[in-house]
Amino acid sequence: MFLRIDHVGIACHDLEEKIAFYESTFGLTVVSREVNEEQGVREAMLHVADGDNGASYVQLLSPLHPDTPVGRFLARRGEGVHHIGYGVPDIAKAMAEIAGKGVRVLDERPRHGSMGASIAFLHPKDVGGVLTELVEAPKRS
Amino acid sequence: MFLRIDHVGIACHDLEEKIAFYESTFGLTVVSREVNEEQGVREAMLHVADGDNGASYVQLLSPLHPDTPVGRFLARRGEGVHHIGYGVPDIAKAMAEIAGKGVRVLDERPRHGSMGASIAFLHPKDVGGVLTELVEAPKRS
Repeated sequence: MFLRIDHVGIACHDLEEKIAFYESTFGLTVVSREVNEEQGVREAMLHVADGDNGASYVQLLSPLHPDTPVGRFLARRGEGVHHIGYGVPDIAKAMAEIAGKGVRVLDERPRHGSMGASIAFLHPKDVGGVLTELVEAPKRS
Repeated sequence: MFLRIDHVGIACHDLEEKIAFYESTFGLTVVSREVNEEQGVREAMLHVADGDNGASYVQLLSPLHPDTPVGRFLARRGEGVHHIGYGVPDIAKAMAEIAGKGVRVLDERPRHGSMGASIAFLHPKDVGGVLTELVEAPKRS
């Protein structure tokens, strides 16, 4: 079902500072910056690798406001890994399969993720404390 | 410098239970099981994807004793993402470069990681709260 580790989502206070750190320390490159009002985040995708089944990224996230999921995460736990995103070939099918195993899918329908992807989150309590995201990349034309 | 997301290291209480969950829910397959006495962990590597620069895994970790790094992590934060491992082409070179940027490298010399890899950890306080591992995969013969 999983095609790749699509991204590691990392919560931070200062997005620009953290981008500069990942660029200068590890040589990663920003390939996309977005504001996702629905999720209350400002984010950057830094390319790590290309694979047989799509690319992998570090996703840096900072909250638009303290009263957002990432804002509350930072207040509670401080900066660090917020979630893990895995690539799937068909998000609707993956959501149905996973829900059928008894894992709570937090989204009824796929929603908009980074760079045109369709995404859905799984309840971290059902995945051993890991907020887990399913990512269907947009079809390449 | 980073070739790939080598693995996501996930701390759990019951390794066999979590392996069964990842296998049955997400269709991943265990490719290696090891006990690493030095790190105080019992671990399993579950294959996610192959890429141009090596493979990606979910690494499930359970502590051999409560008084180990992973045991203390579980007591403090509960189950969840423990660290992120990135593949590098030359670990000694990567350690020197990263140390030169002012990031504390927790190992003086590379040590033994999963499946014959050479690894080193970076101080999470210098990497925005993320315990970060460098992984040089063994040369293929």
